[in-house]
Amino acid sequence: MAGRTVRRRVRRITLPQDGRPGGTADRADVLAAEEPLGIRVDGTALAMTMRTPGDDIELAAGFLVSEAVVHSPADIARMKVCDGTTCGHADHDGLGNIVDVTLAPGVTVAEGARRSFLTTSACGVCGKASIEDICVLPQAAVAADPVRVRPEVLAGLPDRLREAQRVFANTGGLHAAGLFTPDGELIVVREDVGRHNAVDKVMGWALLAGRLPLAGCILLVSGRASFELVQKAVLGGIPVLAAVSAPSSLAAELAEEAGLTLVGFLRGTSMNVYTCGHRIAAPAEVAARSSS
Amino acid sequence: MAGRTVRRRVRRITLPQDGRPGGTADRADVLAAEEPLGIRVDGTALAMTMRTPGDDIELAAGFLVSEAVVHSPADIARMKVCDGTTCGHADHDGLGNIVDVTLAPGVTVAEGARRSFLTTSACGVCGKASIEDICVLPQAAVAADPVRVRPEVLAGLPDRLREAQRVFANTGGLHAAGLFTPDGELIVVREDVGRHNAVDKVMGWALLAGRLPLAGCILLVSGRASFELVQKAVLGGIPVLAAVSAPSSLAAELAEEAGLTLVGFLRGTSMNVYTCGHRIAAPAEVAARSSS
Repeated sequence: MAGRTVRRRVRRITLPQDGRPGGTADRADVLAAEEPLGIRVDGTALAMTMRTPGDDIELAAGFLVSEAVVHSPADIARMKVCDGTTCGHADHDGLGNIVDVTLAPGVTVAEGARRSFLTTSACGVCGKASIEDICVLPQAAVAADPVRVRPEVLAGLPDRLREAQRVFANTGGLHAAGLFTPDGELIVVREDVGRHNAVDKVMGWALLAGRLPLAGCILLVSGRASFELVQKAVLGGIPVLAAVSAPSSLAAELAEEAGLTLVGFLRGTSMNVYTCGHRIAAPAEVAARSSS
Repeated sequence: MAGRTVRRRVRRITLPQDGRPGGTADRADVLAAEEPLGIRVDGTALAMTMRTPGDDIELAAGFLVSEAVVHSPADIARMKVCDGTTCGHADHDGLGNIVDVTLAPGVTVAEGARRSFLTTSACGVCGKASIEDICVLPQAAVAADPVRVRPEVLAGLPDRLREAQRVFANTGGLHAAGLFTPDGELIVVREDVGRHNAVDKVMGWALLAGRLPLAGCILLVSGRASFELVQKAVLGGIPVLAAVSAPSSLAAELAEEAGLTLVGFLRGTSMNVYTCGHRIAAPAEVAARSSS
């Protein structure tokens, strides 16, 4: 496995502005590493994702959670990073870019998951009916989760996430996903060039730590909230998903259906609550004013 | 096909700050629409992508360019949005979320494309050797493209892209990809919740307009530059890719190999040139100082 960052020469160009002369300077720059990770299940390649190396076992585990292949640590018999000595491929460079997963007896990759939908449905996708098909949500307990969160706590989370990020400050190129308690305590943070991978790494961590479903937890993502991130949160049993940027329309629709609280534009001292606002307590001062 | 944006009720929460009271307000918000688009080729589902409706024909065409399935408009016999009357599926809701593509006689979807790699390779991904496998670049003319671009022109592109975006200002939720001449003139702009889709829409536009390869052009993306965006640019014959945010390590590696000029952190009056800097002319003032 390579590192999380890669050093590279870069030419910085600055244009003249406000009387200051422009210039160029060659210097070393730090980039977020991006490499392919293959996930092989019971000897067969299941998926390939472009990811930032690190927490690869968690990423593979979380991917299997997100695809609804596994639901508890017991569903996985063994996971290991392939070291190139056992697969018998002459062209294996030993970079550690494959995770080998052995599922527990009786656990299989269903042909009904998203991937097979992509490749075998003759019709493709027909809107609503098919959204239900691609949506692999089980009857989760998210809707019934009684947690309540104060907006003051939510407003403090982006700063905590940034503090916890080990790479972002260097490269400006990584998405982060952080899991928090209802009181705003950071449980775990993971990073990746792909936002979905960052969330999968968190899911995999939770699976392997025996913490699924993540009842009462808040998941914060550094970018936008797409349909897929909502789906991952619901599969992980997370009742509150907060994003620094905008959600998509389908993210909000699915969140509403699943009973997930979706918060967007969580910046500074304000935020937008798109769904299930009953979990967000009124701001302290507003409550005081309402009762006065 | 649904619209590009969706209106939705949202609760805006503002915390007390600097003596100003906090508050909550329910209001209508505009979200970027996200819906699945199925791409069906010669009657068989090839792929499904979550996209912002609009320019769906171009998106499907660009996807086929990016997968190296088609190389010229003549490779496509017919494309149409399925209206639900011909596919014979009872559950078809007529939303227009499928594009039907009929390839020209003799043009086929090779089993060697990325998708089949994902599902049939027994080994998965073994680092460098496999990057070459997943990389579908042809021997493109990008490396030999003699275009030169002034940094002053590059610095002006993000503003032009933002001006040209029809949705972003409303939702804050859409990526944009813009194609420019070496003099900074906007040729076309496309938007999507997915950055790859925005680029595919540009590629599809170019294919259908008979403008591939896009020699001498600059592609600007509103977010980060990943491996896949570099690959799409090279497949489109584009010699200069500029991103408002960071590139990944593999994006820079592939750009170098392909002879593509990769510019990142294009903001305000500065930018980072990661590869093939010979296409970027020295800033005017620096040139003047060097010669004095």
